[in-house]
Amino acid sequence: MAHTQEPSGPSLSSLLRVAPGERPSLAWRDPGGLPAGPRDKAAGTAATAALADRLASLQERLYAQATAGDRRRLLLVLQGMDTSGKGGTVKHVSGMFDPSGCRVKAFKAPTPEELAHPFLWRVARALPLPGEIGLFDRSHYEDVLIARVRGLVPRKVVARRYDRINRFEQALVDDGVTVVKVFLHISWEEQRARLLRRLDDPTKRWKFDPRDLDERALWPAYQEAYERALHRCSTEAAPWFVVPADRKWYRDWAVSTLLAEHLEAIGPRYPAADFDVDECRARLISR
Amino acid sequence: MAHTQEPSGPSLSSLLRVAPGERPSLAWRDPGGLPAGPRDKAAGTAATAALADRLASLQERLYAQATAGDRRRLLLVLQGMDTSGKGGTVKHVSGMFDPSGCRVKAFKAPTPEELAHPFLWRVARALPLPGEIGLFDRSHYEDVLIARVRGLVPRKVVARRYDRINRFEQALVDDGVTVVKVFLHISWEEQRARLLRRLDDPTKRWKFDPRDLDERALWPAYQEAYERALHRCSTEAAPWFVVPADRKWYRDWAVSTLLAEHLEAIGPRYPAADFDVDECRARLISR
Repeated sequence: MAHTQEPSGPSLSSLLRVAPGERPSLAWRDPGGLPAGPRDKAAGTAATAALADRLASLQERLYAQATAGDRRRLLLVLQGMDTSGKGGTVKHVSGMFDPSGCRVKAFKAPTPEELAHPFLWRVARALPLPGEIGLFDRSHYEDVLIARVRGLVPRKVVARRYDRINRFEQALVDDGVTVVKVFLHISWEEQRARLLRRLDDPTKRWKFDPRDLDERALWPAYQEAYERALHRCSTEAAPWFVVPADRKWYRDWAVSTLLAEHLEAIGPRYPAADFDVDECRARLISR
Repeated sequence: MAHTQEPSGPSLSSLLRVAPGERPSLAWRDPGGLPAGPRDKAAGTAATAALADRLASLQERLYAQATAGDRRRLLLVLQGMDTSGKGGTVKHVSGMFDPSGCRVKAFKAPTPEELAHPFLWRVARALPLPGEIGLFDRSHYEDVLIARVRGLVPRKVVARRYDRINRFEQALVDDGVTVVKVFLHISWEEQRARLLRRLDDPTKRWKFDPRDLDERALWPAYQEAYERALHRCSTEAAPWFVVPADRKWYRDWAVSTLLAEHLEAIGPRYPAADFDVDECRARLISR
């Protein structure tokens, strides 16, 4: 796969992956790092643009083969602190794909109806269908992140959820879903800079919520909750990837590359016609 | 509004609108025509590109003002014969917007569950929320188009649906929805050319369904059903627009322009902060 500037090197997926069983240290992974690929913004933007056609073609083939009964599909799960770029990543990624083959879902605070169901209920309802690419801005991981940090449910309940998540994701994989889980890793300083930009620009102020500052005050607890979730739920079937996200151009390149590698691994193909092409052509031309 | 190349001319909306009460003749409206705006592909592509930033900004403001309680939103309904470019238009339009503020829905043949409900049920479930832009690829109009042409329900039942649709759309408008209904008008010859292209290109063949030829054989009945729907359901509250769609570049320019005109009429604005900006800034900088 020629997915980086060093075609013979290891895949980006293998570099960014949290190995099953690993206890990842987020403090040790640099949110501003460039672990592989382009070294500056100009090269990064160009490399990402160069991926767009390939990704569009892979998506079209994935969608096309589903029309012939193939069940495979892809789910991109995006998690990260406020301002880490989940929405921006969804925008970038979905801009490369045909929207009719994308299923985008942003998970907000659960509604009373959602709270009345098991925590995976609302997630199951938003999954991509065969041939589609699902894009989750937040996910069932909120139920072991904010739920843990804020004590929204007892610790014991949270503790049971990791295994339930792993079984849920294993079932998805068994059903033909390629699950790509990405933690957008930003630094404490970069979050401050981004929040200040929202405050200082009147056209961005509506994105700011003073409660974001309360969440920010719990930064260390969130980092610990993320480390725990990544440790418990990075599995062979559905591993986690940590993407350095302080630089938006690098984040977009890295997520695009992860998607390209996973779609290449599926290797989708246009299906053969299951009808008589010549007969249809004759019918069309006849009048 | 400077939405065409002749800023002082009438709006495109007024030119393409089916006047309430009018019995439109589709044979009389040229699918290859250029009723206003750019005269060739190069100019059209440039004019459409020039609209993209304005549309993105309008959408962001629409979304932003909804966070402060404004209920307004927009619904684009796309109808047209097979290959008329409904999917292509959704792709073009949604490519200009932030996907988190778009709600895209392609209506297929109704499921058994959908058939067990009133015909507007599945439509009501797919409507945009305040601040969102809804994009419908097909809609409740299928229930007076294919339903009529194919005799899926008795004529008498179809006849009652026009008024139900008008009342439904009036209620949407009363609730703050700007409804923009677009008929993508292509010619019999252009449909043949597009179907042939699908047949002749192995990477497009999966989009072809031999049953499309059966639908094509009913072309006159469909044109008549469209004329009837446009006549009965082009209202002051929610008029229909006929967009010449034989040229994709013109179609994209026309739909973009219709959207821009309708969004300008809403005139969305960034809301003022409902919190103490200085206090938040001080809190952010303090540590």
